[in-house]
Amino acid sequence: MVTDLLVFAVPGIPEIAPEADLGRVIAEAVRSASTPERAIRSGDVFVVAQKIVSKAEDAVVRLDSVTPSPLAHQWAAATRKDPRCVEIVLAQSKRIVRMDRNVLITETHHGFVCANAGVDTSNVPSGWVTVLPGDPDRSAELLRAALSEEFACPVGVIIADTFGRPWREGIVNVAIGVAGLQPLVDYRGCVDSHGHRLESTVVALADEIAGAAEIVMRKTAGRPVAVVRGVSEWIGEGSARTLVREAERDLFR
Amino acid sequence: MVTDLLVFAVPGIPEIAPEADLGRVIAEAVRSASTPERAIRSGDVFVVAQKIVSKAEDAVVRLDSVTPSPLAHQWAAATRKDPRCVEIVLAQSKRIVRMDRNVLITETHHGFVCANAGVDTSNVPSGWVTVLPGDPDRSAELLRAALSEEFACPVGVIIADTFGRPWREGIVNVAIGVAGLQPLVDYRGCVDSHGHRLESTVVALADEIAGAAEIVMRKTAGRPVAVVRGVSEWIGEGSARTLVREAERDLFR
Repeated sequence: MVTDLLVFAVPGIPEIAPEADLGRVIAEAVRSASTPERAIRSGDVFVVAQKIVSKAEDAVVRLDSVTPSPLAHQWAAATRKDPRCVEIVLAQSKRIVRMDRNVLITETHHGFVCANAGVDTSNVPSGWVTVLPGDPDRSAELLRAALSEEFACPVGVIIADTFGRPWREGIVNVAIGVAGLQPLVDYRGCVDSHGHRLESTVVALADEIAGAAEIVMRKTAGRPVAVVRGVSEWIGEGSARTLVREAERDLFR
Repeated sequence: MVTDLLVFAVPGIPEIAPEADLGRVIAEAVRSASTPERAIRSGDVFVVAQKIVSKAEDAVVRLDSVTPSPLAHQWAAATRKDPRCVEIVLAQSKRIVRMDRNVLITETHHGFVCANAGVDTSNVPSGWVTVLPGDPDRSAELLRAALSEEFACPVGVIIADTFGRPWREGIVNVAIGVAGLQPLVDYRGCVDSHGHRLESTVVALADEIAGAAEIVMRKTAGRPVAVVRGVSEWIGEGSARTLVREAERDLFR
């Protein structure tokens, strides 16, 4: 039984231009850096930062192209933000969850609940922001197909972004797109060490994998791709949609 | 620069009895299983499941010892739970955060917000439950001191439990006690790849480490301890208290 998890960053990913062939770019970076131990194997999972997916898909917005609404102006004035940036956040949202104490938490069109709808000014040129990919599961699936072909073996792909959480400080990397991997592992009905059936234990594996990858990717190191090895038993079908709690089951929306 | 993360479970941890010398037990299991690559090194972080810490500290409650309150009876009847178990949850809580749709989310005396105040019936004998350790940071510090001495090198310790999250399905492992490790990594003021200063990026490293460890520990495998290697640059002072958002800064309590 596999009991080891190995996580390594892929070095040498260049700045990603719009319409870059991201699968090819990642594959070339892996090959350039690869030692025999780091050659891609069946069941490896690629964790790819949302930022480079957004750039490759041209999911970027020029601030000058935006005309802020009165609400955007209000919030921007209250929080000392750029009203154009706030307007982009509102446009990326289908619902405001909290707008209080300098924090704007919204539900995106995908159903993700996060600060500023995932709109981000870091690691992009001045005057631009990235927004989340329009369909991160599809982005993951395209990358999964490309990378599985490049390396001639099945791999999983997670598109990840760092989100804050209620109640706890700090952001953590989570999966916003998944392909080729079970995102949730359901232990319900399994028997514990004392012979009891576990009743409500479904683990968000894809989020734990995304978080593990963040440790080697880091925020400022220009390493937007990592490989996670040791989770091949969960390679299979999956999407990040199942990680989003339905509104009617959610007590905090 | 270290770019690899290696995570492995410690096999052969026996059932933990009250007042077990947990540091000694863990050290013996590591030594019994150890290959040269798995010998403990300076900067390794031990992730230890809350369950065995609670057992060693006798943080267990016999259901028969509890007299349920009227509120506990009400909630138990509505949710088909054991009223004694509900009473223990209430006793472990300083505030009810949500009590709705079969879910009881409370703030524990430590300030953690989680389902059922961390009271757990899995992996314990029938008729008993575990509760969270009274002071998990102190538990972590005692283990850190013991394991650093056992292996004659500085190590970090995380006491971890699996918590649910608003908005997202599935539970993830998080840090409820920390010693010898910075739990939060503050990138504010660092410069990104485009020369911008990052403004609000504090990463919950200890939670990401705990999640990575869960992948090898699993729920039903009887592997309550894992070692995470590759985070030695963050070895230092720290406690899990800083991971708890203060109530006045929290929009979801």
